[in-house]
Amino acid sequence: LPVTDAPAKPDRPAGLRTNRMEAFSDGVFAIAVTLLVLELSVPAGSGDHLLRAFAEQWPSYLAYVVSFATIGGVWVAHSVITEYLERADAVLVRLNLLLLLVVSFLPFPTRLLAEYIRENRPERVAATIYGITLLLASTMVSVLWRYAVRRRLVHPDSADVELQMITKRLTPGLAGYVALIIVGLFLPLVAVFGYLAIALNILTPFGLIRRRQQPRP
Amino acid sequence: LPVTDAPAKPDRPAGLRTNRMEAFSDGVFAIAVTLLVLELSVPAGSGDHLLRAFAEQWPSYLAYVVSFATIGGVWVAHSVITEYLERADAVLVRLNLLLLLVVSFLPFPTRLLAEYIRENRPERVAATIYGITLLLASTMVSVLWRYAVRRRLVHPDSADVELQMITKRLTPGLAGYVALIIVGLFLPLVAVFGYLAIALNILTPFGLIRRRQQPRP
Amino acid sequence: LPVTDAPAKPDRPAGLRTNRMEAFSDGVFAIAVTLLVLELSVPAGSGDHLLRAFAEQWPSYLAYVVSFATIGGVWVAHSVITEYLERADAVLVRLNLLLLLVVSFLPFPTRLLAEYIRENRPERVAATIYGITLLLASTMVSVLWRYAVRRRLVHPDSADVELQMITKRLTPGLAGYVALIIVGLFLPLVAVFGYLAIALNILTPFGLIRRRQQPRP
Amino acid sequence: LPVTDAPAKPDRPAGLRTNRMEAFSDGVFAIAVTLLVLELSVPAGSGDHLLRAFAEQWPSYLAYVVSFATIGGVWVAHSVITEYLERADAVLVRLNLLLLLVVSFLPFPTRLLAEYIRENRPERVAATIYGITLLLASTMVSVLWRYAVRRRLVHPDSADVELQMITKRLTPGLAGYVALIIVGLFLPLVAVFGYLAIALNILTPFGLIRRRQQPRP
Repeated sequence: LPVTDAPAKPDRPAGLRTNRMEAFSDGVFAIAVTLLVLELSVPAGSGDHLLRAFAEQWPSYLAYVVSFATIGGVWVAHSVITEYLERADAVLVRLNLLLLLVVSFLPFPTRLLAEYIRENRPERVAATIYGITLLLASTMVSVLWRYAVRRRLVHPDSADVELQMITKRLTPGLAGYVALIIVGLFLPLVAVFGYLAIALNILTPFGLIRRRQQPRP
Repeated sequence: LPVTDAPAKPDRPAGLRTNRMEAFSDGVFAIAVTLLVLELSVPAGSGDHLLRAFAEQWPSYLAYVVSFATIGGVWVAHSVITEYLERADAVLVRLNLLLLLVVSFLPFPTRLLAEYIRENRPERVAATIYGITLLLASTMVSVLWRYAVRRRLVHPDSADVELQMITKRLTPGLAGYVALIIVGLFLPLVAVFGYLAIALNILTPFGLIRRRQQPRP
Repeated sequence: LPVTDAPAKPDRPAGLRTNRMEAFSDGVFAIAVTLLVLELSVPAGSGDHLLRAFAEQWPSYLAYVVSFATIGGVWVAHSVITEYLERADAVLVRLNLLLLLVVSFLPFPTRLLAEYIRENRPERVAATIYGITLLLASTMVSVLWRYAVRRRLVHPDSADVELQMITKRLTPGLAGYVALIIVGLFLPLVAVFGYLAIALNILTPFGLIRRRQQPRP
Repeated sequence: LPVTDAPAKPDRPAGLRTNRMEAFSDGVFAIAVTLLVLELSVPAGSGDHLLRAFAEQWPSYLAYVVSFATIGGVWVAHSVITEYLERADAVLVRLNLLLLLVVSFLPFPTRLLAEYIRENRPERVAATIYGITLLLASTMVSVLWRYAVRRRLVHPDSADVELQMITKRLTPGLAGYVALIIVGLFLPLVAVFGYLAIALNILTPFGLIRRRQQPRP
C-alpha cells in the first residue's frame, strides 16, 4: 500500500517546487520596476523655474512609463505561466534566470533612452538598444512558456486549447518588437510609443484567458 | 458527482490567484519605502558642524516621514482589500499595476519636496506635484476597491455593511488631498503637515474593521 | 450547527492575517540590509594603489557589518515574534510600520558613521546618532512583542514561561544601547564595537528558545 | 492520546519554520542581483559616439553577467538546500545571515572589477578581491548544507545517496575558486571567465538531482 511519507511538505513532485522561483522572480520584477525612479531628477539649481524643469523631463517619464508597462506586462505573463506550472526542472529555472537577467538589465537602456531621446544621432542608438532589450525579454517569456508546455511541466488538467491560446498571445509581440526596432532606426520616438502600445496590449487581455476548471463527472 | 481534479493547487477559482499580485505589490511597496533613505544626506564637508548639518536636514526627514506614512497607509489599505479579495481578474491586475506605478514614482516628488521646501517659489511647485501624486495613489486605492466590490471579486461571505464601511473610509482622504493641494499653493508647509495627518489617519482605524466571520447556523 | 463558510481562505480569525505583514517586513529588512552596499566605494582614481585604498575603507566595512548584524538581529527577533503571533490588529500593524521606519532609516546613520568615524569631533556626533537609531529599533522590537503578548495576539497554546523568556531576552539590549550611547560620547569607536557585540549577542541564542509543543494528554 | 493543539499553524516542529528564512533570503538575492544594474553607465557626454561608448563598457557587462550568474547559482543551490530542509535552528539562521552578508557585499567587488579590469596593476587587485568574495559565498553555501545534514535538519525521508550527491556537487566549486584566485594574480581576465564558467556549471545540473520520493510499501 502506498504511504505518504513526507508529512511536513506533502506535495513534493518530481522537480523543484515553484514557490521560491516565484518569490525570487517577484522580487526581481518589483525591484527592477522600482529602481526606475532613481533615474528621475531635475537638473541641480532648477529652483527658479521648477515647474518648467519638471515638465522638460518628459522623455524620462515616457521611458519610465514604457519600462514600467513592459516589466508589468512581463510580470503578468510570468504570473499566467506559473499559474499553469505544476513544477520546475533545472532547465526551466535556468531559462527563468535568463529572463530575470534581461529584466534587471532594462533600467540601464531606460536611462540611455531618457538621456538621449532628444539628441538626433544618439537617440537612434538608444532606441535600438532599448528595443533589442525588450525583444529579448519578450523572447525569453515565450521560450519559458514553450519549454514548460513541451516538457509537460504544466498542470495535467490544463486544456490543450487553453495552452495554445497562451502560446498565440505571446507570439505577435515578438514580430511587433522586430518591426519597431527597424522603425526606430528612422523614427526613434515613434518606436518608443510603439513599445508602449505593445506593453499595454500585453497587459490587457491576459487574465481573461483563465477559466474555472470544470469538474469532471 | 463533482470531483476535485487539481490536487496540487486545489483552490483555483475563476480568474488569477491573488498570491503573486500580493507578493509583487509587497515588493514594490517595500522597495519604494526603503529607497526613500537614499535621498537623505548631509552636504559634503559637514564635519566641523555635523550635528547642525544633520539637524538642518529636517525638510528631508519631514518628506521622508510623510512619504513613509503615506506608502504605509496605502499598504495597509491594500492589505485590507486583498484580505477581502477572493480572486483577481485582468482589469484588477492592471488597476493594481497603475497603483504601483504611482507608488514607485513617489520617491521622485519626495526628493523634489525635500530639496525645495525652503525656497519660496519652487516649494509651491514641489508641494503641488507631491500632493497630486498622493491624490493619485489614494484615488487608485479607492478605484481598486470599488472595482473589486462591483465585480464581485470579494469573498462571497463578506457582509455588505463591512464592504460599505471600507468604501466610506477610503473616500474622505480624497477630498482632503484636493483641499490640501489648494492650500499648498499658498502655504506649502501647512499642506505637507496635512498630508502627514491624512496618512496617520488612514493608518489608524483600518484593521479594526475586520471582525471574525460569524458562522452561519 | 456551525458551518465553515469561507472555503478559499478558511483560517480567517479576528484581526488581519499576518502573512502580508511578514512579507512586507521581510522586503523592507532585505532591502535595508542590501542597500548598505551602495555606500561602499573607493575614491575615484585609486588605480595606482587600489589595495591600500580598499583597505583604508575599513570604517565603511565596520559600519556595514554592524548595521548588517543589527538588522539581521532585528529580523531574527521579528521572526520569533511572528512565529508566536496568531493574528495582527490595527495597533500592531502600526507599531510594525514604526519599526520598519527606523530600520529603513538606518542606512543614513550608517553612512554618516562610515564617513566621519576617523574625524575627531564629528565621529562623536555620528556615533551618537547611530546609537540612538539602534536604540529606537531595539525599543520598537520590544514594544511590538510586549503589545502582542498583552493583547493576547500570540498563539493560545504558547507557554507563559516561553513568553517571559523572550521578554527577558529583549530587555538587556536596551540597557546596553543606552550605556554605549554614553560611552560613544567619549570613545566612539569602542561604542561601535559594543553595538556589534549586542547585535551578535541578539543573533546567538534566539532560535534556541523555540521548543516542540508538548502534546497535551 | 496525543492531540494536535495548534490549529492555526499546525505544522510547528522543533526549531523555527523556514518560510521567513526563505522569504528574507529571496529578497536579499533578488535585490543584490538587481542592484548590479546601477553600476552600468556610459560616460557623460557620450552623445556623439553612443554606440561606441556603449560597446566600450564591455568589462561592466562581463562583471554584471558573472555576478548575476554567481548569485543565480547561489540562489539555485540555496533553493535545493531549503527544498530538503525541514526546519531551521539558531545556528543555521546565523550561517544563512553570513551567506547573505557575503552575497549583499558582492556588488561592491563587482564595481571594482568593472572599473579597473583594463588597468594593468589594479586589475589584479580587483580580480583577487572579487574572487575571494565568490569563494566566501561558495564556502558559506557549502557550510550551510553540511551543517543542515549533520544536525539532521533535512527531511527524514531524504535518501542518504541524494544528500551525498549534493555535498559532492558543492565541493569542486571551492577548489575551482582557489585555483582561479591564483590564476587571477597573473591573468585577471582569464580568472573572470573562469568564475563565469563555475557559475554556469553550478547553474546547470542542480535541479536534475531532485527525484520523486518513492512511496514506501
